[in-house]
Amino acid sequence: MTGEQDPQPIDAPAGASGHVATRLTLEQAAAVAEARAASRVTRRVVAPALEELLYQAIPVLDKGFVRVIDYMGDDHAIVQAARVSYGAGTKTVRTDAGLIDYLMRHQHTSPFEMCDIKLHVKLPVFVARQWIRHRTASVNEYSGRYSEIADTFYEPEPSAIGRQSSLNRQGSAGAVSPGAAERAIDAWRDGAVQAYEQYQALLTDEDDAVAREVARIGLPVSHYTEWYWKTNLHNLLRFLELRMDSHAQYEIRVYAEAIGQIVAAWVPLTWASFLDQRFGSASISAKAMGVLRAELAGRSLDLEGAGMSKGDARELREVLGLEPPAG
Amino acid sequence: MTGEQDPQPIDAPAGASGHVATRLTLEQAAAVAEARAASRVTRRVVAPALEELLYQAIPVLDKGFVRVIDYMGDDHAIVQAARVSYGAGTKTVRTDAGLIDYLMRHQHTSPFEMCDIKLHVKLPVFVARQWIRHRTASVNEYSGRYSEIADTFYEPEPSAIGRQSSLNRQGSAGAVSPGAAERAIDAWRDGAVQAYEQYQALLTDEDDAVAREVARIGLPVSHYTEWYWKTNLHNLLRFLELRMDSHAQYEIRVYAEAIGQIVAAWVPLTWASFLDQRFGSASISAKAMGVLRAELAGRSLDLEGAGMSKGDARELREVLGLEPPAG
Amino acid sequence: MTGEQDPQPIDAPAGASGHVATRLTLEQAAAVAEARAASRVTRRVVAPALEELLYQAIPVLDKGFVRVIDYMGDDHAIVQAARVSYGAGTKTVRTDAGLIDYLMRHQHTSPFEMCDIKLHVKLPVFVARQWIRHRTASVNEYSGRYSEIADTFYEPEPSAIGRQSSLNRQGSAGAVSPGAAERAIDAWRDGAVQAYEQYQALLTDEDDAVAREVARIGLPVSHYTEWYWKTNLHNLLRFLELRMDSHAQYEIRVYAEAIGQIVAAWVPLTWASFLDQRFGSASISAKAMGVLRAELAGRSLDLEGAGMSKGDARELREVLGLEPPAG
Amino acid sequence: MTGEQDPQPIDAPAGASGHVATRLTLEQAAAVAEARAASRVTRRVVAPALEELLYQAIPVLDKGFVRVIDYMGDDHAIVQAARVSYGAGTKTVRTDAGLIDYLMRHQHTSPFEMCDIKLHVKLPVFVARQWIRHRTASVNEYSGRYSEIADTFYEPEPSAIGRQSSLNRQGSAGAVSPGAAERAIDAWRDGAVQAYEQYQALLTDEDDAVAREVARIGLPVSHYTEWYWKTNLHNLLRFLELRMDSHAQYEIRVYAEAIGQIVAAWVPLTWASFLDQRFGSASISAKAMGVLRAELAGRSLDLEGAGMSKGDARELREVLGLEPPAG
Repeated sequence: MTGEQDPQPIDAPAGASGHVATRLTLEQAAAVAEARAASRVTRRVVAPALEELLYQAIPVLDKGFVRVIDYMGDDHAIVQAARVSYGAGTKTVRTDAGLIDYLMRHQHTSPFEMCDIKLHVKLPVFVARQWIRHRTASVNEYSGRYSEIADTFYEPEPSAIGRQSSLNRQGSAGAVSPGAAERAIDAWRDGAVQAYEQYQALLTDEDDAVAREVARIGLPVSHYTEWYWKTNLHNLLRFLELRMDSHAQYEIRVYAEAIGQIVAAWVPLTWASFLDQRFGSASISAKAMGVLRAELAGRSLDLEGAGMSKGDARELREVLGLEPPAG
Repeated sequence: MTGEQDPQPIDAPAGASGHVATRLTLEQAAAVAEARAASRVTRRVVAPALEELLYQAIPVLDKGFVRVIDYMGDDHAIVQAARVSYGAGTKTVRTDAGLIDYLMRHQHTSPFEMCDIKLHVKLPVFVARQWIRHRTASVNEYSGRYSEIADTFYEPEPSAIGRQSSLNRQGSAGAVSPGAAERAIDAWRDGAVQAYEQYQALLTDEDDAVAREVARIGLPVSHYTEWYWKTNLHNLLRFLELRMDSHAQYEIRVYAEAIGQIVAAWVPLTWASFLDQRFGSASISAKAMGVLRAELAGRSLDLEGAGMSKGDARELREVLGLEPPAG
Repeated sequence: MTGEQDPQPIDAPAGASGHVATRLTLEQAAAVAEARAASRVTRRVVAPALEELLYQAIPVLDKGFVRVIDYMGDDHAIVQAARVSYGAGTKTVRTDAGLIDYLMRHQHTSPFEMCDIKLHVKLPVFVARQWIRHRTASVNEYSGRYSEIADTFYEPEPSAIGRQSSLNRQGSAGAVSPGAAERAIDAWRDGAVQAYEQYQALLTDEDDAVAREVARIGLPVSHYTEWYWKTNLHNLLRFLELRMDSHAQYEIRVYAEAIGQIVAAWVPLTWASFLDQRFGSASISAKAMGVLRAELAGRSLDLEGAGMSKGDARELREVLGLEPPAG
Repeated sequence: MTGEQDPQPIDAPAGASGHVATRLTLEQAAAVAEARAASRVTRRVVAPALEELLYQAIPVLDKGFVRVIDYMGDDHAIVQAARVSYGAGTKTVRTDAGLIDYLMRHQHTSPFEMCDIKLHVKLPVFVARQWIRHRTASVNEYSGRYSEIADTFYEPEPSAIGRQSSLNRQGSAGAVSPGAAERAIDAWRDGAVQAYEQYQALLTDEDDAVAREVARIGLPVSHYTEWYWKTNLHNLLRFLELRMDSHAQYEIRVYAEAIGQIVAAWVPLTWASFLDQRFGSASISAKAMGVLRAELAGRSLDLEGAGMSKGDARELREVLGLEPPAG
């Protein structure tokens, strides 16, 4: 899925495709339905658009998903926390959107920390290894020591199998040919089938069953795991900034994009501000600023016409040495 | 207030005492009433006993309070997160209470991290300085740079003015005499009144108003500040373990006790387990364990009769070298 | 002191001014001399310019200081850690300076976390309250519960007493008049003297000495405290970015500037990169980038002439839609 | 290796076994030798016994290792930081060992945070996945996106292949039979060889080389990775408490034990205190304490004879309701 699409919960429509079985277990699907049917009364703030998504599995990759399990706060809670700190003074910023933009631009991060979200994610192990590097989160992962690992392995779409670039070490330069993709997929599938059969054989050896915690060491890093992952909105945006980036590996980027859709439903003002002030912004070094200032000296650009707020535009004019707008 | 009393929200009863004015501002009291009157529908888990307390100010010290602004999760959410990690195996522990006890005893902390609470606290600066040392929390504090500081200073009850112990460096040995207490309170009050008058004079000097951020430097550490403070349940229990302790300073201990009442309403199973397995427990060193084992060798104590679960009792018998119960 | 000056350790020159006594205690000064005289052999990496500064008190404000107590790592350790992650590929970046610039620009923060520094700081309480908001650090603060607080209060220079701006809520608009400054300083001094006399009286009341932990509540937030503060280089740079900023309060900015001098001695390549890529950089929003791209379309700016590396210049040209340099 | 043995650096003795090649690369071995030969002068505190170990690879499992790359602080630095906080009062505790014991017993953790250690670790991916759950550390891991993964896979010793226990879900009940072990090892080896051949084929397909970041998804979790891992002593002890525990998986326990040997060389007083007050201690619940107090009422146990300090013994007597020692 891309960042532009609406999330398509796989378990929402009755008569949905057979994909459900490969993502949610039957037990999980029943729990989702039960949880969604329940309705409770609360005095807390509620984010209605996120309530619509609650508990539903948004499909990612061939067998993974992201589900929202719980959340706390909304755009207004961020504004409220900021007004505690910045007091009467913030009243001069009239709108919630304007204040959120101000906080985002000036790295006043603590109000965004006041919102939390708890996700249930099903993802391949090699993606989990990148994801877990974001340390400021709480995690409960399915344990291969306590429970048997399921027969679920990631198989890339042919278009997702990048060609190794000789220039760009990290990424890939377009997809490999269909023939090469087919060979790779066949090889991964055969390897996974064989490794899983071996795993099962070790677990069920009649007199000599190998402990689960050791038996698993032959499974490839493409096998799916699951976890509950909880973080606050500030740390989540940091995660998205890095993982929605075009240099992030495709397989984690699609998770980040799915979560981006969730954030857009949860805190729409914050999401819009994030896209403009952080994700889509550029950091210009001191040296480069010197060149730009010289080049732009004395000009008057129509920043407001591009949708910038007065405050943003004024700050940028100061930074770039631009003339104030005529009139 | 002590840990045994029910929290008495000051703004709950109609016709409450004039104390409200000294704690909540009129604006705050109106916001509390409005927030409590609202009622929304949610699919999230709800903790009914905590909903009752939501937004209400629980009085602490002479002019402070603690209010719950928001929360996420409940006892069952902890159990659910644990079952993700420990899988089918945890089904052998039949009850939620038993599983929570198991997690608490074995320091499986991540499921407790899945619950969050956001508090609004009004507290003296010297208490805030101890409190902030707990780093794993998010804070938005009222800023004396942006806004004027209010004329609100802590004055201890005479019974709370401890005598300096010559033995116990940290704490105090009972209260000072009534006369000494009166002298101290008078001196603090005079000092605060004078410091605040000076502060006001600096802020309002006709042509030469001193900036708020500097003007405040003469205010005593007894002046009240306010903040929003958000943390997860695991870190909150750690805070309570240290700050409800008899060696904690009285003025922070009463805040911890008020929060303890909130936790008891929010996650009653976790609270009971915390009191038994953590707060009321003792840590016995390896050397001491050697002595105890020798002393108790071969005995059979009635641990179950004291209310210990079978699992707890079995583990303790192993550790202490006790005989299993007869029969 | 300002960011441009060299740090002037107060205890370095023999026959230094009497200021030492008001900053370091005699006991502390003796410990500094002893520690500096010692010399040991190590296999660890050593930062020679920082060794020169080790243990010496760099004066800040009227009675405060910053001293380096210990450190771990240097510029080369950052490079080494990065090469572990990015492997053979990073060999294409030939110089250490180039690699550090690359890490700084792309927010690859973990290599900077590999360096640590431990500082001893003497600072007013109201500064400590801002400082401690940076949570990713370890702190051991002098305790007013366990020990008696010294008679040391911050008195601003007249030029540091800002006038409250009616526009700029946070900061101040130039200094107040000399007369107003004198009145303010007199008032703060009188208040501090009186509060300290009262504190002493409470502590030494013949039969009824008030416990230290309570007696202190009348002391103004201008009194000095001390702490050991340890953090890693990544978090330290984040601290400096926010606290060296012109919007930071003067009294914490001068500490940040003193620490900046220390960092410049410790990791000079990282410091230069920080100033160019972070502290002196500007963040341009997506909307503003649209305007700039339109304005600059088709131009070819001499970025290399401004001192930008080829890699930096190439990235910026892509972002801004600039023409590559001729030839 | 077990916790009782001295660490045996594999690269120390001239003419050491051929194991070096399978653990350190030739390039790494040369770097170790060069780093160990260098000798520098510093004013910082030095831990001589740890200097002896610096840079050397301590072998763990069949192909892994732990090496100390850098460190900061020693036992005395902990004591010094504690005396800043607890001031003159701590002078009544005469010895460094006594003060460290006091800090350990009362969970005064911040002084232990003042020491840091940086390790280079080579470990299987499934061990790395458990290790990384300790979030309060800095990590630079070898990246399979940027560099090619080496042909190095973990093969357990037959004695390390546990039998799955039907009672104890987590652990294992002794080793499987030699025949079953041989079958398992053969299967893992065949799987690893085949997966690595496939990986190489994908990387080197003439026209259609698959990107490294995707090609690796078929490699089993037994393949070795490497990282630099830096943490402070407080968090390291927490890691060791959990991972040296008998319930930890064998493959991570041996790493924890190797690190334990390093800590013993680095901060011997802290290590001894940790073993007595934390690792070897028992936590007794409030309910169990009630039973023990009743059972021991009025007795006088020879706690000092077991090596407990007077302070420890006095505290334990209070907790257990024991009589003070006669005389």
